[in-house]
Amino acid sequence: MTDRTQPGQLLARGVSRHLASHGFVSVEEFVPARGLRVDVMGLGPRGELWVVECKSCRADFQSDSKWQGYLDWCDRYFWAVDADFPTELLPDETGLILADAWDAEIIRMGPEAKLPAPRRKVLTQKFAVHAARRLHAFRDPDFTFGV
Amino acid sequence: MTDRTQPGQLLARGVSRHLASHGFVSVEEFVPARGLRVDVMGLGPRGELWVVECKSCRADFQSDSKWQGYLDWCDRYFWAVDADFPTELLPDETGLILADAWDAEIIRMGPEAKLPAPRRKVLTQKFAVHAARRLHAFRDPDFTFGV
Repeated sequence: MTDRTQPGQLLARGVSRHLASHGFVSVEEFVPARGLRVDVMGLGPRGELWVVECKSCRADFQSDSKWQGYLDWCDRYFWAVDADFPTELLPDETGLILADAWDAEIIRMGPEAKLPAPRRKVLTQKFAVHAARRLHAFRDPDFTFGV
Repeated sequence: MTDRTQPGQLLARGVSRHLASHGFVSVEEFVPARGLRVDVMGLGPRGELWVVECKSCRADFQSDSKWQGYLDWCDRYFWAVDADFPTELLPDETGLILADAWDAEIIRMGPEAKLPAPRRKVLTQKFAVHAARRLHAFRDPDFTFGV
């Protein structure tokens, strides 16, 4: 189980709460494809898929060499940072969410780049599997998956 | 939260464990459409959707007037019952799973009636929403959804 007191995890909590207010559900640490792991993947009421990467500080952002690889796996891409983060570092053509551990606010929408239908289908199913597998672990803690 | 010591709930636990051994994930008390609620909805590795209704006794089965309405919302339909259940009551053209609280076994596969693609798409997204919403409640118990 992830340590949920890490700064990035706390931002993810606030982000997930805020996405819920937009009618989105979300999962954390979602793997859209081998070698990629996004902090928060949101699924919207019309099937929209949003990636939110949570950055707790400048170093956390600057050490991320993978984020551009996430753009092909969502309809919109966002950064989530706290109020102290130097937001001028972030690329203009990405979304921006101001977050803390309790809530968040979308400051700038990520530009929309709609997923091709076959990829959306695969991602939605992966999202379902991810969420159901983790839910199963909560509702039946004595059971362990073979994988 | 559902009382998880009810006989039907215990069968559902065994069913979900067994489905996992087939590479399926599952959710409980899934609502495919207004007015319908299935005990277990399984999602398979190729996107298959299986409904499993858990019946703890003869009366539980005989009081179910809705099951035929579930056939249109899955690729295969199964009953799950325990070893004492009078299985001769169950219609031949449905699947049969023998279950207890710890595991289960598929005795007879439900006949396949493939979902139309648009309905499968809707159901897969609903499955994802259901699982993610309940997972969110576990990982952030202080948060309550507006809906």
